[in-house]
Amino acid sequence: MAASAALKARVPRQSYLKKLAKPEDLIDYFPHGSYIGWSGFTGVGYPKKIPTALAEHVERNNLQGKLKYNLFVGASSGAETENRWARNNMIERRAPHQVGKEIARGINNGNIKFFDKHLSMFPVDLMYGYYTMHKENNKLDVAIVEASAITEDGGIVPGASVGASPEIIQMAEKASWCGPKIIIEVNTATPSFYGLHDITMTDLPPRRKPYLIMSPEDRIGTPYIPVDPDRVVAIIESDYPDQTQPNAPEDESSRAIAGNLIEFLQHEVKHGRLPDNLLPIQSGIGNIANAVVGGLASGGANFKNLRVWTEVLQDSFLDLFDSGNLDFATATSIRFSPDGFKRFYDGWTNYAPKLLLRSQQVSNSPEIIRRLGVIGMNTPVEVDIYAHANSTCVMGSRMLNGLGGSADFLRSAKYSIMHTPSTRPSKTDPTGVSCIVPMCTHVDQTEHDLDVIVTEQGLADVRGLSPKERARVIIDKCSHPDYKPILQDYFDKAEYECMKKGWGHEPHLLWNAFDMHKNLNENGTMKIDKWA
Amino acid sequence: MAASAALKARVPRQSYLKKLAKPEDLIDYFPHGSYIGWSGFTGVGYPKKIPTALAEHVERNNLQGKLKYNLFVGASSGAETENRWARNNMIERRAPHQVGKEIARGINNGNIKFFDKHLSMFPVDLMYGYYTMHKENNKLDVAIVEASAITEDGGIVPGASVGASPEIIQMAEKASWCGPKIIIEVNTATPSFYGLHDITMTDLPPRRKPYLIMSPEDRIGTPYIPVDPDRVVAIIESDYPDQTQPNAPEDESSRAIAGNLIEFLQHEVKHGRLPDNLLPIQSGIGNIANAVVGGLASGGANFKNLRVWTEVLQDSFLDLFDSGNLDFATATSIRFSPDGFKRFYDGWTNYAPKLLLRSQQVSNSPEIIRRLGVIGMNTPVEVDIYAHANSTCVMGSRMLNGLGGSADFLRSAKYSIMHTPSTRPSKTDPTGVSCIVPMCTHVDQTEHDLDVIVTEQGLADVRGLSPKERARVIIDKCSHPDYKPILQDYFDKAEYECMKKGWGHEPHLLWNAFDMHKNLNENGTMKIDKWA
Repeated sequence: MAASAALKARVPRQSYLKKLAKPEDLIDYFPHGSYIGWSGFTGVGYPKKIPTALAEHVERNNLQGKLKYNLFVGASSGAETENRWARNNMIERRAPHQVGKEIARGINNGNIKFFDKHLSMFPVDLMYGYYTMHKENNKLDVAIVEASAITEDGGIVPGASVGASPEIIQMAEKASWCGPKIIIEVNTATPSFYGLHDITMTDLPPRRKPYLIMSPEDRIGTPYIPVDPDRVVAIIESDYPDQTQPNAPEDESSRAIAGNLIEFLQHEVKHGRLPDNLLPIQSGIGNIANAVVGGLASGGANFKNLRVWTEVLQDSFLDLFDSGNLDFATATSIRFSPDGFKRFYDGWTNYAPKLLLRSQQVSNSPEIIRRLGVIGMNTPVEVDIYAHANSTCVMGSRMLNGLGGSADFLRSAKYSIMHTPSTRPSKTDPTGVSCIVPMCTHVDQTEHDLDVIVTEQGLADVRGLSPKERARVIIDKCSHPDYKPILQDYFDKAEYECMKKGWGHEPHLLWNAFDMHKNLNENGTMKIDKWA
Repeated sequence: MAASAALKARVPRQSYLKKLAKPEDLIDYFPHGSYIGWSGFTGVGYPKKIPTALAEHVERNNLQGKLKYNLFVGASSGAETENRWARNNMIERRAPHQVGKEIARGINNGNIKFFDKHLSMFPVDLMYGYYTMHKENNKLDVAIVEASAITEDGGIVPGASVGASPEIIQMAEKASWCGPKIIIEVNTATPSFYGLHDITMTDLPPRRKPYLIMSPEDRIGTPYIPVDPDRVVAIIESDYPDQTQPNAPEDESSRAIAGNLIEFLQHEVKHGRLPDNLLPIQSGIGNIANAVVGGLASGGANFKNLRVWTEVLQDSFLDLFDSGNLDFATATSIRFSPDGFKRFYDGWTNYAPKLLLRSQQVSNSPEIIRRLGVIGMNTPVEVDIYAHANSTCVMGSRMLNGLGGSADFLRSAKYSIMHTPSTRPSKTDPTGVSCIVPMCTHVDQTEHDLDVIVTEQGLADVRGLSPKERARVIIDKCSHPDYKPILQDYFDKAEYECMKKGWGHEPHLLWNAFDMHKNLNENGTMKIDKWA
């Protein structure tokens, strides 16, 4: 098969060009039950051609539910490929994170065995063999990795994300059985990202070494993922960019939350607990995160020389760069909107020197997060009055997207901050769901992890507080006026009952702790008349 | 005041001897509301004379509840001093861990504002000023540190624990206000521990550095805690040893648990996921931990050249040393029984070269635990069918001892193992309390953290499993026969109900999840007839 000029320009390794293939010719590499690793993280840098070809193969031959795979990706892949696989019932097992309506449906209806794991731990647990230990060779069968370019010695230059690709490659390479099983999709529709990555491979204990990173701009690796070229079975030319969506817009509530947060950071600077340029910032995904970063970019906040140590960069970080207040940012993925990517490519020479992409094991490493004193900010499903948070399961049962890196950051950050609107609408009540609840229906972040809870109502600083002190300040500062008396009543009753029994450390009405959730389920709102 | 010969032999620093005082002369250093830091960890290395003098002062002058302190200790202090303070209502606030009937009572009746924090994070949060930010100078007022000896330049050689003493010293030293406020109790009743410590002081971000430890025996610090001698206000001679208790004896159940665990470790070696000499072991406190370590010491397990990276060493580690199978052990505390200490001192020349004590920030550091690939083992209050664990609060409300280092290890260990008897007795039913429950009433360890649950019934290996798979294997392998049908019924009903609603990822009967606990509270047993 003849290579295009665009492809030749990206692939100086001649032996790879000889392995150029069409995706539909590789179907046989993927028998039912295969363990597959994909590149990709938060919907960028994922393989596009082969997953699509496999989906077409299933659709054409009515193999839905008959050709199923165990699929491991750093985080979420492209919704358009993953959703199609889920719709075709092609996913037997999936970890550690996903985004997409169809895949969430498959997980919650039992078609897909999904587990979510700390994104910093997933790649090394994969290499420990924890996810492949029930198959004969304890390795992945195939790795499909998207590259934006190839180096002369055959190394892979990733695109807009690194994710778990280094470890996925290692888990495909280390197989002692016959035949290499790495497939590279070279994407010629986007520029080469050469120089934007700092890649470290993973040694296992007792041979692991420290990550010698003391500042977000420190480089400790190579600009590409080294690969044994003999293990590469095929390359594919890929011709369309990451299918990202526009960002959720800011609204009044998210701007109010951001305002409260920025005021808190200014307070911390004033009291000498933060330097003038803060410490490296981690910010999650979504409209609150956008509003916070937007707030930092606007003149009002007046923080200069900021640095970012985070998992994912969204569009708002481009504004922060453009404001002149951001000196350096590092992440494992840049998930811009289509407009954001255009802006990024147009301004490449400005942005690239201030940006570095690392593996998720490094971007989310507790070692580094703790050393740098990161300011960690994330959005939960719900927070309870004692400062536990639910990041994953609605009503304790229904999976949304997965844990992601929330606990990597919130456990080890210097400032562990949860930001959330105080309420969300239910189908029948605009404030039918309180995000401040008596007891979380699922706990992903514990009371031992969170320092600050902030809503549009206000900010609760719970550092050094006992549980009962925490409850008072969270109810007082963060809850919506519609729920404040309900929550206060819960706490007062719980305190009274538990004190009587000598259980008064963290008072709960255990048999009624989920009454607000029950009322939501039965009557469409968490507003209850009284605690039974 | 004249120094004894014993004291002079321990204190080569002349200027300190001039500051020799009697504890009762120092009462004025401790006004009501003081913020005090003590040395000590798991009931060893804590100050004895001044706390006792203050308690006597309160008792003599009927100052109960009128002289109250904010007390910060690495972990638990001596029960005899802390309990006496609690009985005298002398503790306003306490963190991050405690052991003792009276102090637990004070916490659960509202007298003591207690919060538990990851032991690795507590010292640095203290230095961040998070626990002193509501007082004017944002520092501790007084630090009382026990020393087993003093160096010529005034440094403190701790005794059987390091704990948070380095940071407590730093938080007392850094005060810019008038006067030094460090008091050293030099304990001449035990030998000098010189040479047994590896002490690192704490820099704050952005100046923190990696811990360059690649193996348990690596030294990166000094053999003493450096102190500015001008800050030392007094020294006290202390004349009685740590008041430790005998260890809880092994029983049939703990031996069965240990047997299951050791079989699992052998299985992992056989499958190449562990080297022949395993990886560094962390073991908690209690009779199961003793049985596990005892099992490793006995010939049957046949593991050689073991290493230990843990928080606390108990007596059973002496057996492991004596078996010849333990090459090196490091911890932040050696909490031996009185007999164990005698054995340790008698065999000093054998044990000392294989032992190193570090600060709790280092012993419990996620950075190092992850790098070394530690095998972490702890005992919970209860574990649920989806592999969350409660380590702290009975019935979600009543505090036992606190989180300790459980989450430091279980989050970052290569193997995160919870071991527990499948049941405990209630007042009226020998198996009235199931330690495997549908939903934990308090969550300290999440489903994203645990790899293995083990009881005397069997071992559940939940690595890489989805929640529903986990539930099946935990119920099947770990639950007591009296509870297996009850738990299976819960899971079946929850699965049916949640699948119907499209919530089937982690099925719960949310309104009935604590029915077993309710029945225990009302009828003295968790055995319920049916799920409502």
